[in-house]
Amino acid sequence: MKRIPETMRAVELRSYEGGADSLVVAEKPVPRPGDGQVLVRVAAAPVNPSDLSFLRGTYGQRKRLPVVPGFEGSGEVVAAGGGLLARFLLGRRVACAAPPDGDGTWAEFMLADASHCIPLRKATDTEHAATMIVNPFTAWALMGLAKSLRAEAVVQTAAASALGRMVVRLAVSRGVHIVNVVRRAEQVELMRREGAGYVLNSGDDDFDERLRELCTRLRASVAFEAVAGEMTGRVLGAMPAGGTCVVYGALSQKGCLVDPRSLIFERKNVRGFWLSDWLRRQSALKKFLVAGKIQRLLKDELKTEIRARRPLSSAVEGLSEYEREMTGGKIIFVPGASAANGEA
Amino acid sequence: MKRIPETMRAVELRSYEGGADSLVVAEKPVPRPGDGQVLVRVAAAPVNPSDLSFLRGTYGQRKRLPVVPGFEGSGEVVAAGGGLLARFLLGRRVACAAPPDGDGTWAEFMLADASHCIPLRKATDTEHAATMIVNPFTAWALMGLAKSLRAEAVVQTAAASALGRMVVRLAVSRGVHIVNVVRRAEQVELMRREGAGYVLNSGDDDFDERLRELCTRLRASVAFEAVAGEMTGRVLGAMPAGGTCVVYGALSQKGCLVDPRSLIFERKNVRGFWLSDWLRRQSALKKFLVAGKIQRLLKDELKTEIRARRPLSSAVEGLSEYEREMTGGKIIFVPGASAANGEA
Repeated sequence: MKRIPETMRAVELRSYEGGADSLVVAEKPVPRPGDGQVLVRVAAAPVNPSDLSFLRGTYGQRKRLPVVPGFEGSGEVVAAGGGLLARFLLGRRVACAAPPDGDGTWAEFMLADASHCIPLRKATDTEHAATMIVNPFTAWALMGLAKSLRAEAVVQTAAASALGRMVVRLAVSRGVHIVNVVRRAEQVELMRREGAGYVLNSGDDDFDERLRELCTRLRASVAFEAVAGEMTGRVLGAMPAGGTCVVYGALSQKGCLVDPRSLIFERKNVRGFWLSDWLRRQSALKKFLVAGKIQRLLKDELKTEIRARRPLSSAVEGLSEYEREMTGGKIIFVPGASAANGEA
Repeated sequence: MKRIPETMRAVELRSYEGGADSLVVAEKPVPRPGDGQVLVRVAAAPVNPSDLSFLRGTYGQRKRLPVVPGFEGSGEVVAAGGGLLARFLLGRRVACAAPPDGDGTWAEFMLADASHCIPLRKATDTEHAATMIVNPFTAWALMGLAKSLRAEAVVQTAAASALGRMVVRLAVSRGVHIVNVVRRAEQVELMRREGAGYVLNSGDDDFDERLRELCTRLRASVAFEAVAGEMTGRVLGAMPAGGTCVVYGALSQKGCLVDPRSLIFERKNVRGFWLSDWLRRQSALKKFLVAGKIQRLLKDELKTEIRARRPLSSAVEGLSEYEREMTGGKIIFVPGASAANGEA
């Protein structure tokens, strides 16, 4: 095990108003794990849409500033505080989630709650594990939610996102019909390559009509909605009576607009999904079992495409690169890399 | 029993585009009851907000035109088709709801499904019974829904409406805290007279802040929302985490605008309520029992204020009178009255 240095490099958010523009790469002390905590030497940490929302201050939790962003990552546990679980993790490779009130993964080291770490199987690649929590768990939980709502088929918006593609592959492998809504013509082809049978472009003139026809025919009674704005109401309106629209994102950064008649006369409803909340409600055993299943699927159904690896020193450029084009795979920060070998 | 004439006067809607302006008073044949039906000589029939929505074509059901509007009324059963229930009702005074696919109550006679008639108790005044279904059943069902959602307190918008005032009185008599939202200063005083402890004017500058403070303090986790537009999201935003907004009307005639963060990060949800749907889901016994309880409360908690009685011949004027000012009590059509004695 390598020596733990006194200080580390970390990306820091200084103001929510500034957002991504107020990020700086700072040198700060390496923290020491307390009771129930471990210190993770971060190997890889992705940029997710929820990170962008966090940087703007519109995410469900605001942390005290300055703070290191990054909701998830992977690495090696190099120090453990007190507690059985923490000591068990020492020396192991883990996927880890940032603590709800502390610094995140865009740093050389992160302090994690031992209970927010998932030890990796031998067959699991450390880099793949960096994107193992946010999207794969969400895809898994959404499919479970659809099942518990007894959906025969589902609709999803933002289907070409990393998460959307995981949902498609899970649905296809489980034989669940899924209607995929994308926003650009080139994404239609991308979805077909994922095995999607039903792909609609929301920019097409006959989109609403075709969406309604498909939802009716397939009896798609649950929607996974990540766009918000008018899209929420369009999807809700297209579903058969009794449908549930599950909002889990707001890529349009607008309020959800819903026709009250869908709610009143057609027994439709709108609710939300938040992974943090879902995780809080699961037992430790359930999370352990799901983590095992997810690791086995990381190369297939729950695979994340990685577009580029970037050192922390080019965090700001990496973010704007991701924001410009979110469909073409993830940007991964590799804190161990120097600026020179950052290319994928 | 009076002789049944061959023809009758009835208000007829000729086009949804024309709405209330396309109403005419027509002479048409008195229909004959078939199996399971009764003929009701209408004594009184109110104008409700749902009737206005029906005339505009924005209600949950559109009927084939021309059609007689009017969702509810009361009168005497003067002829019965086949069936035990229909024959039982013959000669009795009833409250009745219009059939989902046929002519309504704004006529001298209406054909009703026997199962959509409620025989009146001796103590129940026929005119009071005319407004017995739409608002009292809705108020009753909404309070039941709040109870089933385990609400400690509720919020309601459009609180000064006939229905809103019933909800307040039921809540007060049951000891349930209720936060009432009205849109005009004079309605605040009106609500206080109904016994309402918490009344907020949505036009006040500090409305959102005070609504949030009250909802938090009283733990108001269910809202009855009849305005739609931005109001749905304002109420949802003010409720504590996990709150449910039940939309049962759309007086603003706008789409419901909801902050996706309320859905995602605060486990809040939006659903609808429609009386027709609720009635369909109740057993005949349950409806019978509720009808009995409601009749006992018609002079108190479930009282409807009547502003004016109008003959069918002045239906158009009566409607525009109601639309101008919906807080000041109901307009009731009295088909038996001539134009001369129409004043309340």
